[in-house]
Amino acid sequence: MAESIRAEIIAVGTELLTPHYTDTNSLFITEKLNECGFEVRLKSVVGDNKEDIVDLLQRALLRSQLIVLCGGLGPTEDDLTRVAVAEVLHRPLTTDPQLLLMIRKRYLSRSIAMPKINERQAEVIDGAEIIDNAWGTVPGMWIQENASHIVLLPGPPNELIPMMEEMIVPRLKALGGGRQLARRLLYVSRMTESAVDALAAPIYTKYPEIRTTILSSINQISLSFSRWIEPGEEEADLNELTNAVCEVLGDAVFSTQGQSLEQVVGNQLRDSQHTLAVAESCTSGMVGTRITNVPGSSDYFLGGILCYSNAAKENLCGVSRETLERFGAVSTETAEELARGVRQALGSTIGLSITGIAGPGGGSAEKQVGLVYVGLSDGSRTLSYRRIFPGDRDMIRKRAATYALSSLRKFLL
Amino acid sequence: MAESIRAEIIAVGTELLTPHYTDTNSLFITEKLNECGFEVRLKSVVGDNKEDIVDLLQRALLRSQLIVLCGGLGPTEDDLTRVAVAEVLHRPLTTDPQLLLMIRKRYLSRSIAMPKINERQAEVIDGAEIIDNAWGTVPGMWIQENASHIVLLPGPPNELIPMMEEMIVPRLKALGGGRQLARRLLYVSRMTESAVDALAAPIYTKYPEIRTTILSSINQISLSFSRWIEPGEEEADLNELTNAVCEVLGDAVFSTQGQSLEQVVGNQLRDSQHTLAVAESCTSGMVGTRITNVPGSSDYFLGGILCYSNAAKENLCGVSRETLERFGAVSTETAEELARGVRQALGSTIGLSITGIAGPGGGSAEKQVGLVYVGLSDGSRTLSYRRIFPGDRDMIRKRAATYALSSLRKFLL
Repeated sequence: MAESIRAEIIAVGTELLTPHYTDTNSLFITEKLNECGFEVRLKSVVGDNKEDIVDLLQRALLRSQLIVLCGGLGPTEDDLTRVAVAEVLHRPLTTDPQLLLMIRKRYLSRSIAMPKINERQAEVIDGAEIIDNAWGTVPGMWIQENASHIVLLPGPPNELIPMMEEMIVPRLKALGGGRQLARRLLYVSRMTESAVDALAAPIYTKYPEIRTTILSSINQISLSFSRWIEPGEEEADLNELTNAVCEVLGDAVFSTQGQSLEQVVGNQLRDSQHTLAVAESCTSGMVGTRITNVPGSSDYFLGGILCYSNAAKENLCGVSRETLERFGAVSTETAEELARGVRQALGSTIGLSITGIAGPGGGSAEKQVGLVYVGLSDGSRTLSYRRIFPGDRDMIRKRAATYALSSLRKFLL
Repeated sequence: MAESIRAEIIAVGTELLTPHYTDTNSLFITEKLNECGFEVRLKSVVGDNKEDIVDLLQRALLRSQLIVLCGGLGPTEDDLTRVAVAEVLHRPLTTDPQLLLMIRKRYLSRSIAMPKINERQAEVIDGAEIIDNAWGTVPGMWIQENASHIVLLPGPPNELIPMMEEMIVPRLKALGGGRQLARRLLYVSRMTESAVDALAAPIYTKYPEIRTTILSSINQISLSFSRWIEPGEEEADLNELTNAVCEVLGDAVFSTQGQSLEQVVGNQLRDSQHTLAVAESCTSGMVGTRITNVPGSSDYFLGGILCYSNAAKENLCGVSRETLERFGAVSTETAEELARGVRQALGSTIGLSITGIAGPGGGSAEKQVGLVYVGLSDGSRTLSYRRIFPGDRDMIRKRAATYALSSLRKFLL
């Protein structure tokens, strides 16, 4: 079995240690490192504190062959990454006159005079290769120290992402020697995580070299199978495992290529030359939003009605007052009349409806918070599904939207 | 100025080092620590690797008074947190018979036989206080080591969050001695980040003891002012700064209490006894979704029409064919007719419309991708706003939805 190269990521910036900052940089970097044969074994987030950066880097050099530091390369006194790295490596930090000129030019091209303080951004660690940053002013650096490599990148994602893709990935691929993390991904709907595991475990436990993870989210249950492979090595075991699991899960697998449920449903609609209209009560736009996340959805999506009020259900979707009074707005009967009605109102071939109780109020002994009906009609066939979802208002609504899309997928199969 | 107590967070679990795991635990823990007087100075994510956990904890004990470790407390051989902490502290790990009994009982109450392997979850580090976990099977631990405190919590958020809130926060408050991070938060719309900073900087730079951060997101620009305070210490400077910045920003500030734009608009609608209907073309449900995120929105939100196709604009929202042909679906004229039309169709007092080009296709020399019109009508007054948004399809749609809500807020002021 191939050994991956050990990498770690250090993010620098006091703002990254607040409760409101969601780290996406390290996820992106991890994805790219995995593709190039590096396994991320440790991630740290540290404030603008030289002592802490120095300590982290010293420890990292003892255990990792690749260390990616991001952030802390700005021009102010708070930006300490350059100084800390130079200190750990015992190398001088000197101003590169050519780099200074380039940074100055970049400011000029934007008709801004370069502030004096920004001269610091032209300081280079002795022996470092400068990584050009065409997306901002501060360049990155690539430094080799014995058997380890240290990469310095700016923190803003709009600079970090293109620099990583265009400047760093080619160097990493050369260094990684063609190793990569091969991965298969299955998305499953309309099953619980434990039901998926009960069917899949007898198969994946026979492949101890493959790492299997099952992750449950609102949009799907994801099954991931991965293994590090050497250049030219066969991936037959990965394919074998994936196919065997697909077989036991059957129709519940809606994607083997990472497509979202709305992409899959969109392709079904396009392929079968159907058009869709939606009537959304408790989700009030979530299904419309997801369907139209897909570019080109105007090929099959005509529109819909947000029938939040009973008046909208009656006047715009043609639900009879009798149905609303006798069975209530959250009922099989209303769901089916909504599906028929919205299909007629928009002139689509298929009508999809959702009505439910998202809470926190509105529940009763008979109809609890979380109760959701999905209706479907193609003119000749009309049916509905009923489910009770756990969670808060937001969770119930999101789960209902996913359930509506997976019901539509089932209807079209 | 008060000194906060230095804390760090170590998350344990190989699955946390994949490109698909978004860390929310550490943000929640940071928020709670800040409230109790602790400043998070370092965060790490480490795999199920004893050597790495040991190394991180050893370094952490040299610099931090509080160390929160989460994850790695499960029953399998991969769960190494207990073993690693015991090793660092040179303390024995022994099975607590009472705890074993309690865990066994918890399984019984769910009518599940406790697997033999789960006995490991009753192993306790010598001298640790057991933190009961009423939300799962594995308990947490609180360990004092010289002047430092080590907290062990399970990783799943549905166990970690309530344990933190109910079991850990009271202990932290006692330890924190009443210090806390006082914070003021302003949300701003319809301005750029640099325009906000240009107005606010001359004021906030006069308060060097207060940390100011400006964060731009799709939903708002957030201005945060924070400072550590001792028990009983005055917060007059924070109020002074906040008020002064509110004054220069004027109407652009839509929230001083952390309310979302949809909450603020909802309150405006309720207070003015208006009802709302929306016609959404390019956003196709995003505004409806956001309005109905707010519990009780049925007080003022009647529903809407997803007029994705031109037929829906014409047949359901009463836009004339002439307008569509002469000015196009993305135009001032269509936006205003949609607002009038959806108001009539739903019988609301206010109609709001959005029409635009979300891309990637559909743009032209005359009308580029990102062009969006928002229409508003209350029967006597009808108007529209025009903006061009940068970004990809998803960004343009989200920005358009925010712009529609902020336009509605302005209309109601």
